[in-house]
Amino acid sequence: MKIAKRMGRLGTETAFAVGAEAGALAKTGKKVYPFHLGDMNIITPENIRLASTKAMNEGKTGYCANAGIVELREAVAKDVGAARGLDLAVENVSIQPGGKPTIGKFIQTFMEEGDEVLYPNPGYPIYESQINYHGGVAVPYGFKETDKGFDIDIEALEKLITPKTTCLIYNNYQNPISCTSSPEEMQKIADLAIKHDLMVLADEAYFDMLYEGKGQSIASLPGMFERTVILYTFAKKFAMTGWRLGAAVGPKEAIELFNKLNTNDESCSNHFNQYAAIEALEGSQDEVKGLINILRERRDVLVDMLNEIPGVVTHKPNCTFYLFTNVTGAMEKMGLTDVEEFRKKVLYETGVSFCTRKHFGTPLDGETQHYIRFAYSGIDIDNIKEGITLMKEYIEKF
Amino acid sequence: MKIAKRMGRLGTETAFAVGAEAGALAKTGKKVYPFHLGDMNIITPENIRLASTKAMNEGKTGYCANAGIVELREAVAKDVGAARGLDLAVENVSIQPGGKPTIGKFIQTFMEEGDEVLYPNPGYPIYESQINYHGGVAVPYGFKETDKGFDIDIEALEKLITPKTTCLIYNNYQNPISCTSSPEEMQKIADLAIKHDLMVLADEAYFDMLYEGKGQSIASLPGMFERTVILYTFAKKFAMTGWRLGAAVGPKEAIELFNKLNTNDESCSNHFNQYAAIEALEGSQDEVKGLINILRERRDVLVDMLNEIPGVVTHKPNCTFYLFTNVTGAMEKMGLTDVEEFRKKVLYETGVSFCTRKHFGTPLDGETQHYIRFAYSGIDIDNIKEGITLMKEYIEKF
Repeated sequence: MKIAKRMGRLGTETAFAVGAEAGALAKTGKKVYPFHLGDMNIITPENIRLASTKAMNEGKTGYCANAGIVELREAVAKDVGAARGLDLAVENVSIQPGGKPTIGKFIQTFMEEGDEVLYPNPGYPIYESQINYHGGVAVPYGFKETDKGFDIDIEALEKLITPKTTCLIYNNYQNPISCTSSPEEMQKIADLAIKHDLMVLADEAYFDMLYEGKGQSIASLPGMFERTVILYTFAKKFAMTGWRLGAAVGPKEAIELFNKLNTNDESCSNHFNQYAAIEALEGSQDEVKGLINILRERRDVLVDMLNEIPGVVTHKPNCTFYLFTNVTGAMEKMGLTDVEEFRKKVLYETGVSFCTRKHFGTPLDGETQHYIRFAYSGIDIDNIKEGITLMKEYIEKF
Repeated sequence: MKIAKRMGRLGTETAFAVGAEAGALAKTGKKVYPFHLGDMNIITPENIRLASTKAMNEGKTGYCANAGIVELREAVAKDVGAARGLDLAVENVSIQPGGKPTIGKFIQTFMEEGDEVLYPNPGYPIYESQINYHGGVAVPYGFKETDKGFDIDIEALEKLITPKTTCLIYNNYQNPISCTSSPEEMQKIADLAIKHDLMVLADEAYFDMLYEGKGQSIASLPGMFERTVILYTFAKKFAMTGWRLGAAVGPKEAIELFNKLNTNDESCSNHFNQYAAIEALEGSQDEVKGLINILRERRDVLVDMLNEIPGVVTHKPNCTFYLFTNVTGAMEKMGLTDVEEFRKKVLYETGVSFCTRKHFGTPLDGETQHYIRFAYSGIDIDNIKEGITLMKEYIEKF
């Protein structure tokens, strides 16, 4: 079987291997504390589920338009527009089978083969995979740890821009770091995009996963909307990860091309579930608010307990359901230099399962600190307490 | 906004334009008889719908494996295997968000840039689009009308094979022609694929839409399974077009690459609907059998009525829900030479809306006959009778 060369450039999400390892350990009878997956152990709110069933039983089981049903496109335009201060219409929205499809479609639409694309590292690994797969050059930009969290290393980023740079991927409310741009940082990114005529993918998967305050979108800055495609998803805010429903939001010309890719790739997204997504946006928000409160409680307990472990430092981020935790001190104490070795030791000794910095891109030159990523969306408060207590006891032994 | 060059190679389904034209006409108050779309006006069977709701309410609303849930992969392996005489396992099945995604994923996996790929014309327009889009050379092969239906022009096809030909797309139970290969024709295609070491995409979207007898898959012929990927879909047999659920079925090595593309493109297909798909395959088949009987009745009425129109000749195919109808005589009578002109005249005069040969690829050299395509999946028997009566009266006037 001869395989096309392009397949050799296709990456994957190595975090799934951690899940498989944890699953295999659980099968041996060891209790596993799952902090490795960005999935949710919270069912989708009932009003949203009922809306899916209603639409299905009303016969919305045939095809719909490639771009999605007009009613949902309108609802997304209204909600995304209002939250970001943008005046959006149906023509600015292409419904997608998840948040993820917008990454590949953005790269295909705007990146010429050989172009350089800036992407965050640590970052969601599909960015790098899609850039490489479609024949581009993936150029990582990094972050600097501060006393409050993390900042984008803007100076370093600027130096990476060349005449071949055409696109920039910007993931405010970031996975895995959970950092938030200050208004100044966001403006600097926008200034660079305008100065160097870059198209921007604004991955806003976690825009609505804020614990305090109101989100800001780079698309709302002057001169940015016409060069930005927003990745929107129903997955996180509404606990709909497994529904596979999201949207690309951007200038009409880009959205038309995304719709044409829909026609080629998957025809359309599931028809009746789009009515559930309308209910998610426009129906009762009671259960949705409950979700963020559940996650806040988990975050607070987890951060406090982790900071009691010797050699472990973690910030309390205002967004996402991830912690990017510095374990450099703990590793030194244990005589370890490889964060993957640290991960495996903790997993097999305590059952606490998490990803590391290495699952989010190849470490950059000059990185001296070691980080692990905790996701607290898929584990309840009692198991957080039990697991982190075991981890603390284990590390304290050294 | 600079758009990547590859987007200029992306095709579309021009049949959607016919739908838009018919929709616009309907808005003026004219009654439209929709024969243009391969969608179904029949709701998904109740037992399948109930299974979706049950799984959703049981909390299957989080992510599932990229390849799909193991239980559904097992069910597909069993059903597809039994229907085709193949011994299949979980590793041979990758769940997809529809039948269509298997087309693009096959091309990406096996076609090198510059390779020549044989595809049927008239045929599903996404084949040609995906070949061109990913940098291949789309080489159409045609059909010959016989007194019973249509045969693949095998002699012409063989002459098209060059050292650059690496893949062949074969759509038995064909859209739009509705032809069925004889065992001899299928063996000849297999012989050519083996002789020239071609990978084969067997688009079997209509494999289960047979009115009489049992389907045969090219993958079941000696030496073929290891070079064939089957496009499977739940859409047609189970009236699940809008659910967007299907599968790629093939050798383990190919399926692993499809799964990796899933990880990149859409993470996974909708989780809870996969339980509905298991119910479709393994639950009561009573409503499913009812579906084929409804379609059979429509086919029989439509074929008989069309053959009463002067200058219109149509065969009674044993598969799909399409008729590929020869209107050469009627067009001569009306003084027309362009089948699109014929389509528009009939549409605006009678409201009868259908696609033409031109919506299924650029006509090949030497084609002298004119064809239109009727889909009878989206129109009930009374409207078939009413519409075709109007069409007959209109053509008889000339």
